Order: sequence, then C-alpha cells, then structure tokens
Amino acid sequence: MDPAPRRSESGLAIRRATHLLAAFTPDRPAMSLTQLAQRTGLPLTTAHRLLGVLVDCGLLERDEDGLFHVGLRLWEIASLAPRGLGLREVALPFMEDLYAVTHENVQLGIRDGLESVFVERIAGRTAVPVLTRVGGRFPLHPTGIGRVLLAHAPVDVQDEVLAAPLQSFTPRTITDPAALRRILSDVRSHGYAVNDRQVTMDSLSVAAPIHATDGSVVAALSIVVPAGIAHPAALAPMVQTAARGISRSLRQFAK
Amino acid sequence: MDPAPRRSESGLAIRRATHLLAAFTPDRPAMSLTQLAQRTGLPLTTAHRLLGVLVDCGLLERDEDGLFHVGLRLWEIASLAPRGLGLREVALPFMEDLYAVTHENVQLGIRDGLESVFVERIAGRTAVPVLTRVGGRFPLHPTGIGRVLLAHAPVDVQDEVLAAPLQSFTPRTITDPAALRRILSDVRSHGYAVNDRQVTMDSLSVAAPIHATDGSVVAALSIVVPAGIAHPAALAPMVQTAARGISRSLRQFAK
Repeated sequence: MDPAPRRSESGLAIRRATHLLAAFTPDRPAMSLTQLAQRTGLPLTTAHRLLGVLVDCGLLERDEDGLFHVGLRLWEIASLAPRGLGLREVALPFMEDLYAVTHENVQLGIRDGLESVFVERIAGRTAVPVLTRVGGRFPLHPTGIGRVLLAHAPVDVQDEVLAAPLQSFTPRTITDPAALRRILSDVRSHGYAVNDRQVTMDSLSVAAPIHATDGSVVAALSIVVPAGIAHPAALAPMVQTAARGISRSLRQFAK
Repeated sequence: MDPAPRRSESGLAIRRATHLLAAFTPDRPAMSLTQLAQRTGLPLTTAHRLLGVLVDCGLLERDEDGLFHVGLRLWEIASLAPRGLGLREVALPFMEDLYAVTHENVQLGIRDGLESVFVERIAGRTAVPVLTRVGGRFPLHPTGIGRVLLAHAPVDVQDEVLAAPLQSFTPRTITDPAALRRILSDVRSHGYAVNDRQVTMDSLSVAAPIHATDGSVVAALSIVVPAGIAHPAALAPMVQTAARGISRSLRQFAK
C-alpha cells in the first residue's frame, strides 16, 4: 500500500475526532451517536467507529443512557494547558484576595483570536449574575476584560474586531467602532477598562491588564459588581493591584 | 484499497494522538518534538506528522522556542467534562463559603479507578502547603478525600486498592490493610474521614461525601488545616454542611 494515503488518512482521523470532541457545547454537554453524527456531518458508521476509539482512549465517556460526554482523562490532560489552568494557578490566590475583600464576581480572561476566553471565575452565591462561563468564549467589545485585551491587541486584530458587526447586549452596549476606538485609547492611558451596563443592565465591571515578563498583556482580571453601587474609579486601584500581583508572580513562575 | 486497514489505521492515528497528548505531565508541561517522540516511543517522522495535525486542530500549541504544550482549545472542550468543571461549577460557591470562614485549603476530589483526581482547590496564600494539584492524581488511602471515596467505592475496588503496596508519605501514614479497613468502616458510620499527618507532617484534613440524586457518592469535599490547631470532630460539621449543600445543588442541577 502506498504510504501517502495512509498519512492523509491518519490526519483525517484526528481531524474528525477533534470535530467530535468540539461538538460538545454548554447547552449540549451530553449527546447520542445520532446527535453527534448530525452535528459533525459524519456518516453514522464513521461516527460510531471514531466514538468507540475516543471512549477507549478515555477522551470521551458514555453514561448509563448511552449518551456521550467529555471524559475525565481529557480534562486531566487539559489541566496542563499553560493558558488555562497554568495561568489560573498563579492567579487564584490574588483572585481570592479580591473576592475576600468584595464578595463580588472576580474573573480572569485571555484573548484567543477575536474573542475572549474566561479561564477562571470566583463568585459568591449573592454576587450579581453574569453571562460568562469558565471555559466559555465571549466577544471582546462589551466586557471590561475584553476591552483590556483588545486595547493591547495588535492593530490588525483591533481592526478586524471593529470592522465586524458588533453584538448589542443591552440598550447601552456601545457598538460604534469610532466610539470603541476612543474607549480603547482610554484603556491604554488609564490602565484599566470599565464596562457599565454593557452586557447586562444590572452589572458594571472594571478590568486591568496582566503582563508577561516581556511586558506583553497575556490576560486580564476583572471585578463585576451591581451597577450603581460603586464608581469605577474607586474599584480600579483594587483590581490593578491584584493584576500587578499576578504579573509579578508570573515573572517569578517563568524563571 | 481495502477499507479494513483504513479503519484500523484511523483508530491507530487517534490512539497515537492520545499518547502524544497524555505525554505532558506537571513536570513536563512543554516538550520538543524529540522529547515527545522519546516519551511516546513513536518514530520521529510519525510524531512530527501527528504533532502537526494536533497543532492544526488547536489541541496542542507551539511556543516561540518550538516547544509543544497543551492548547487552549483542548482546555475549552475539557471544560465541558461533567466530572471536571461541571461538578466544580456547582461546588465552587459552597467551597467559597468554607474558605471565607476558615481561610484554609478547601479541596474537591473524585475517584477514577484506584486513584483520586482533584478537580478543584481553593487556597489562601497563607494556608498550609499541600501535595495535591488541580487535575492531578493521588492515591486513595492517605487523604481525607481518598478515604471518603474509597469507603463508598464498590467492594472489589476496596479490595484491589488494599491488596496493592500502599505508599507511605510520613512516619504516620497507615499502610496496614486491616487498619485501613477499620478506618473505612468508621468513615461510613461517622459520615466523614480524617487524615491526621498522613500526607505531610504539618497537615490534617477532614472530608465529607457528596451524593448524587441516586444516593451514590460522586465526589468528596475536604478542608486541610495545619496539624494540631483543631480537633477533627470540630471541623467535621462545617465540611459536612458544605458537602450536603453541594449534594442538594447537584440534585437541582440534574432536574
């Protein structure tokens, strides 16, 4: 047999397996064979065979009802992602401090492409509800974390985000590219970003950048409070202090 | 071409890809192509080709130095594992409560086979150091969490764990199977487990079970404090209360 088709065959198998893994979403954390085949567009027999291998490998698990879900082994491997739990381990003590002082939502996010990914959140049971989820993606333009990350992103990323249609979450969400450019400029000069009722009408957030050893912004930290209870400028020093603590720890960690 | 070798070929590709993913460990979170080939026993060209696909799929990422590490996309998918972040999302507010009251280590773990996996930990910067890590595995016999999970495991799991050589971590670690069986019986009758200097000489932990809707024990919650500062019986009600809160939330979550 010619080795060439074998090579592409193995690439195809891994790509298809990744499609199956990535088919799971927060609204669909468990699915049947038929649902997974439909979602991925794979023939039923192909999906069946690949799912069998993924369960064998522990990357997926199957429950008593025959539904597939993401496996513990995948989660164990993923815990080694430097931009996931690695960053989180360094940041958590500082996030705890911020939470202990405020008892509000404390969030940690990074940029991936044109979106933010939330890698950690601490929230008391009485804190204001938020739309974000650990492991979940969110647009950059309306949140405090997203604005910090976008303000420090390469210009081509900023251009691409601001050129696309921008989703409105509340009557107050700013979606005008020119207005957002002014906001990003303010974020860079003030050292923090504010989201005042941009995502929900009852929440306000203040975010500050986390810097790597080379000075680049690798993540952002935010606190989310009920809108109207505090002035952003009063919250900023607290968030900036915690973000600087994380930056300092990251540098020690990198040594 | 005969479809049979194709089928086994795609299974083999996914298995090899999983070996590459699972090659990363806490001591080796970033590795070169050569290191990964050595670790997995794959030929260099095969490892090279498969790593290329895994990077393309976003399951791995490659840094400026050419080292591979676990990718953010894998972490995003893994965040949907019901036994990982799913459980954690339900448990976190109760863990926060326990942390707010004590400012000690608060841990959440599940059993996978003959070991425990820690899925969450909250720790103040001044809390007693622990050997466990989020996403990391640990033997069942010495920890409070492990003893709760083992006490409620099927008898064949208990037999298998107690029949194997049991690692000693401190001069006080109990490794006698008969003594451990008596401890597991106490755990079931008292409703909590104690680890008094079993893992490190300066720590004591108290753990309580978390129950699913069907009454089975799906996880355990523990608090770790400096040895000698508190009597286990004084800590137990607090841990049990928080564990019951998580169990109640899990039942609501399941509806």
